[in-house]
Amino acid sequence: METDEPRWLDDDEREAWLALGSMVIRLPAALDQQLQRDAGISHFEYQVLAGLSMAAGRTLRMSDLAVLADGSLSRLSHVVKRLEQREWVYRTPDPEDGRYTLAVLTDAGYEKVVATAPGHVAEVRRLVFDPLTRAQQRQLREIGRRVSTAIDPDGCPGTGA
Amino acid sequence: METDEPRWLDDDEREAWLALGSMVIRLPAALDQQLQRDAGISHFEYQVLAGLSMAAGRTLRMSDLAVLADGSLSRLSHVVKRLEQREWVYRTPDPEDGRYTLAVLTDAGYEKVVATAPGHVAEVRRLVFDPLTRAQQRQLREIGRRVSTAIDPDGCPGTGA
Repeated sequence: METDEPRWLDDDEREAWLALGSMVIRLPAALDQQLQRDAGISHFEYQVLAGLSMAAGRTLRMSDLAVLADGSLSRLSHVVKRLEQREWVYRTPDPEDGRYTLAVLTDAGYEKVVATAPGHVAEVRRLVFDPLTRAQQRQLREIGRRVSTAIDPDGCPGTGA
Repeated sequence: METDEPRWLDDDEREAWLALGSMVIRLPAALDQQLQRDAGISHFEYQVLAGLSMAAGRTLRMSDLAVLADGSLSRLSHVVKRLEQREWVYRTPDPEDGRYTLAVLTDAGYEKVVATAPGHVAEVRRLVFDPLTRAQQRQLREIGRRVSTAIDPDGCPGTGA
């Protein structure tokens, strides 16, 4: 009988959940705001450019980049189209397998990342690392990994991209 | 001279950041998926309904509910319109001050929350609380509060709504 009863959150859990919820809602919005203001791009656009800048040959398959959009190719395509219009990225069929499309960072796109990264990192530091103790930073990594693994046991938690 | 150099993340910070980023991208999407599948509503729609269900008179000002949308009244209005079409919510001018609009949960809306909450809480428990130790749950609350306070020093971190 009792097994059908919902296990409601207790007070401690509820407070942790609300604090997490607040962070999950506000952090992406805050990072977006700094990037829009200082670089004229969204956080998601920055993640795409930065992801390409770190890849071999500054090139990734669209289907691999889509991890940044939690798997949504249509959302990614929409954003990459805008980045193409600004001549930071171009798309081309994968010469190794024509069923895939590659996204390639241009020189102008790379320069955009180089110009934008310092301000973004400073904001990440101000909002996430400076307020935490070193022990909390380590706990944050472990918490993030455990939750990501619970969401997707086959994924690669902690690789981020 | 050195003060102009960006303070890049070190390896530990970078790993913590990627683990947090992964969680921030995936958790809302995972919660959305369970709610869409089992209740036919988005996570954001659920938050609006649940927020109203806990308020006095099951009523809140739209401007207060907008905290759930990180302050965006236009995003909130769009969602409340859909909830009105399903007859779970209605809007009415605030009798105490006509410049404000109230959102009110209907009886059908309240029943929708009651029917939906157990499955949602079970998913929150599975993805966030079960994978963490009790000490990590406490750290999560403290980390969430510190980051939320850094983002918005005047906000109410941990109140969640």
